[in-house]
Amino acid sequence: MPYLSVNDKNIYYEMYGEGEPLVVLNGIMMSTASWQAFIEPFSKQYKLVLMDFVDQGKSEKVEEIYTQDLQAEVLKGLIDKLGFTKVHLLGISYGGEVALKFALKYQDKINSLILSNTTSYTNELLKDLGKAWIKAAKTYDGETFFRTVIPSVYSIEFYDNNIEWLRKREKLFIQLFTKEWYDAFVRLVISAESLNVTEQLHEINVPTLIIGSEYDSTTPLRLQEHIYKRIKDSKFVVIKGAGHASMYEKPYEFVSIVLGFLNTYRYSFNIV
Amino acid sequence: MPYLSVNDKNIYYEMYGEGEPLVVLNGIMMSTASWQAFIEPFSKQYKLVLMDFVDQGKSEKVEEIYTQDLQAEVLKGLIDKLGFTKVHLLGISYGGEVALKFALKYQDKINSLILSNTTSYTNELLKDLGKAWIKAAKTYDGETFFRTVIPSVYSIEFYDNNIEWLRKREKLFIQLFTKEWYDAFVRLVISAESLNVTEQLHEINVPTLIIGSEYDSTTPLRLQEHIYKRIKDSKFVVIKGAGHASMYEKPYEFVSIVLGFLNTYRYSFNIV
Amino acid sequence: MPYLSVNDKNIYYEMYGEGEPLVVLNGIMMSTASWQAFIEPFSKQYKLVLMDFVDQGKSEKVEEIYTQDLQAEVLKGLIDKLGFTKVHLLGISYGGEVALKFALKYQDKINSLILSNTTSYTNELLKDLGKAWIKAAKTYDGETFFRTVIPSVYSIEFYDNNIEWLRKREKLFIQLFTKEWYDAFVRLVISAESLNVTEQLHEINVPTLIIGSEYDSTTPLRLQEHIYKRIKDSKFVVIKGAGHASMYEKPYEFVSIVLGFLNTYRYSFNIV
Amino acid sequence: MPYLSVNDKNIYYEMYGEGEPLVVLNGIMMSTASWQAFIEPFSKQYKLVLMDFVDQGKSEKVEEIYTQDLQAEVLKGLIDKLGFTKVHLLGISYGGEVALKFALKYQDKINSLILSNTTSYTNELLKDLGKAWIKAAKTYDGETFFRTVIPSVYSIEFYDNNIEWLRKREKLFIQLFTKEWYDAFVRLVISAESLNVTEQLHEINVPTLIIGSEYDSTTPLRLQEHIYKRIKDSKFVVIKGAGHASMYEKPYEFVSIVLGFLNTYRYSFNIV
Repeated sequence: MPYLSVNDKNIYYEMYGEGEPLVVLNGIMMSTASWQAFIEPFSKQYKLVLMDFVDQGKSEKVEEIYTQDLQAEVLKGLIDKLGFTKVHLLGISYGGEVALKFALKYQDKINSLILSNTTSYTNELLKDLGKAWIKAAKTYDGETFFRTVIPSVYSIEFYDNNIEWLRKREKLFIQLFTKEWYDAFVRLVISAESLNVTEQLHEINVPTLIIGSEYDSTTPLRLQEHIYKRIKDSKFVVIKGAGHASMYEKPYEFVSIVLGFLNTYRYSFNIV
Repeated sequence: MPYLSVNDKNIYYEMYGEGEPLVVLNGIMMSTASWQAFIEPFSKQYKLVLMDFVDQGKSEKVEEIYTQDLQAEVLKGLIDKLGFTKVHLLGISYGGEVALKFALKYQDKINSLILSNTTSYTNELLKDLGKAWIKAAKTYDGETFFRTVIPSVYSIEFYDNNIEWLRKREKLFIQLFTKEWYDAFVRLVISAESLNVTEQLHEINVPTLIIGSEYDSTTPLRLQEHIYKRIKDSKFVVIKGAGHASMYEKPYEFVSIVLGFLNTYRYSFNIV
Repeated sequence: MPYLSVNDKNIYYEMYGEGEPLVVLNGIMMSTASWQAFIEPFSKQYKLVLMDFVDQGKSEKVEEIYTQDLQAEVLKGLIDKLGFTKVHLLGISYGGEVALKFALKYQDKINSLILSNTTSYTNELLKDLGKAWIKAAKTYDGETFFRTVIPSVYSIEFYDNNIEWLRKREKLFIQLFTKEWYDAFVRLVISAESLNVTEQLHEINVPTLIIGSEYDSTTPLRLQEHIYKRIKDSKFVVIKGAGHASMYEKPYEFVSIVLGFLNTYRYSFNIV
Repeated sequence: MPYLSVNDKNIYYEMYGEGEPLVVLNGIMMSTASWQAFIEPFSKQYKLVLMDFVDQGKSEKVEEIYTQDLQAEVLKGLIDKLGFTKVHLLGISYGGEVALKFALKYQDKINSLILSNTTSYTNELLKDLGKAWIKAAKTYDGETFFRTVIPSVYSIEFYDNNIEWLRKREKLFIQLFTKEWYDAFVRLVISAESLNVTEQLHEINVPTLIIGSEYDSTTPLRLQEHIYKRIKDSKFVVIKGAGHASMYEKPYEFVSIVLGFLNTYRYSFNIV
């Protein structure tokens, strides 16, 4: 029964493996289904929890405007209902933003925090990008949607090397994307517009890893440095040659860094 | 009489000052009017020639599909009609691409070549971006158009610091943009789709300066390095903290680098 | 009895833990003692093997000139004597260079190859740096030696934040450094002078991870890219804000990336 | 008569051309003779003033310890004696540091300020580097000196491409370097040790250009950003592919940027 009613929302989740819980938070266009290839490595040592945010994948659609605070509360509810005292949180982009909101309110529930390609502030350019995405979504035309959104997701290099895979994938998704999907996507974009937690980040005091990509122009390294500088003792690792969607462009590097950090952060290196 | 009939097209141009001719080639969304603030510094020592490409500004609209080769021929025709033996060529983005096409065919007409934020190859990501721009243009809705196009033009930093200027500027342009303008813009985008001259660049043997911007994610430094490596003895200078539209974001740096190169490239520095 | 006679040299090594063998190859100024803080995390899942190269730590001093080929042969001998069919090889700087030499000759003995802050070619600048180090070593004066060598090892940032630790550490080492130590160091520097395997790297076909540091000016990222481009399917991860001695400057990131890769490289991510 | 007695020191200078005065301040190992190839372009529109600092080139040697404040006072004296109301100041590395000291005390004498490969703070790593240089100088052995100093001056790329030129140049200099030269060099290094004006930089309010080099690891771009952020409206331009000695590695780019800025900074670009 992979659904739980959390804060009156029907939330879809999946669990795999045994160990300390590792909760994975999707990027905006992703869903639990996006993690298929990652289930095995992530669930070998951990109780992997995938979940769809409100308006994502198989979770409930919400016919009203909200912010990422709602998603953070839904995450809190799910963690409580599943009976976890503490979790490892891994958030990708939108998911990382929700993870930051969650950490600012419930950091006692966090064992470790991993933020991949995440910004702490929706800057004016990202706001415009979001509006372009909304305009494209509201055409309900798959081609318009993908042409508008995808150039912000992958690097030039990945694009050039995988154009056929990208096109096949698009076709697949276009068949699945209903009017409801696009409308939900629009609400997700809107929910991120007001994000601005940069000046609160110093309150976060949990073991934190930041994963960036050399060629990410949507959440470039210089934006992630704001997080790095403000979360005490946070670690920052960069994947060479990857764009915003680092987990797809460089899955080995992505999984290596995540698993490595989870296996390492508790050690004490008395070097300096 | 600022029009000349070139290759059966009515081409608009402006001339200022005296000296060796310096021909400036617009970026795709620009026109002769974009250079207002630059006329004084550029025309002090040079005969500055501004021109609108086919389908740009006040030049003739062309109701058919073409490539940037057409623009290169129009440029050749204009240079001949104006009676110039050799010119300095400064191209911005789209204009730099046309400059490359021109240089590959008519380099004996070039004194020096300055390529600002230019790529030698329309990669798959840029092709998709172009398609998104076309979709947006064809809505004939100014807001959709600007939200879709502008995030690729300026840096996050410029956006955050100049959001009001950007909005005012948009309003101004939206009033000016007719259906004809949008249709012409679409043809300009299409004309750049097939660009791929990277492997011919080694044929260019004129004094060449490449200007890049640290935060340009549309034609990032790593793409401009392909040009740098292939044009013998070319020079490469980077404007810190600027996005794709370096001339707007950092006009002092942009003009400094252009004028400096024009004043310097003829010297011989027998250092090494 | 932590010595083995390998190729007629008395080689010191240490072993910890159980599992697949993970052989760690020191940087030029390091020894088995340098890994104290890393033994626990590295030996938890692996049979960790530390070793001192010829002229390093407690291994035999060799009163003649040699190249890194000798070290690669010593490594081969040690692996054979210990009865390992295949090993994971982790090399730091000089150790990474020996690992490359080993891989080019004995790659069937390698499960996975991890190259931290490694170059495939001793460029002219490194050669001069090596000569400066030799000059400094031959003064047998600890202060001259450390002032000359250490600025190439750590980042400006690490230096500024840990100057007292650096000074204490120096004092400790100066007491330990005998004339024999300095003479052995000189031979180690000389042994690296002729390294140039860049054009053979494409022959290496084992799972390979490259670890670089953002602020490494001794083996900068652009040199490591030569390796990345030539070893098929190699992975490249960068530690933000670290200098050449990434394991000391950022031990959590360093260990995370190493352990993560060892836990991950065997998975198959059928994404693209 | 190219000497002036300034603050009781005998200071050597040279003047070329007519126009607004452009005073050039040497890097630590340079002298007026280093600018031979640059005299023509710099003196075409400006009254170029070259000078040797105290303990440099043909200026007086000073048998006592001093700081860069002394050099700033000498500069002030020279400017006054030559009767200049205002000057353009171009400082390279050590010269840029003196220029900063001068600007903090006498900015009303400055028309424009150009800082090439300059830091505002002698960090701990640079202090150690300075000590290594002192140790090497005090051997009075040219080979030891050059091997120790030169790897911090040029990029790996320049080294590899110009190793013969570097060697020839060294031989030439070694013949010229007397014990007095080395002793003076030591005093120059010591004079820079205490530099730390970062937190005063906001007081500087003159048109300022910062020139950095992509591969400068002695005064890397991230150190120059401290200056860029603190001097209001300063401009920052980067020379691709150059090391610390940008004027030697990339003379065209260097001169272009300097002349361009001098020709441009007075314009008003009312763009934003």
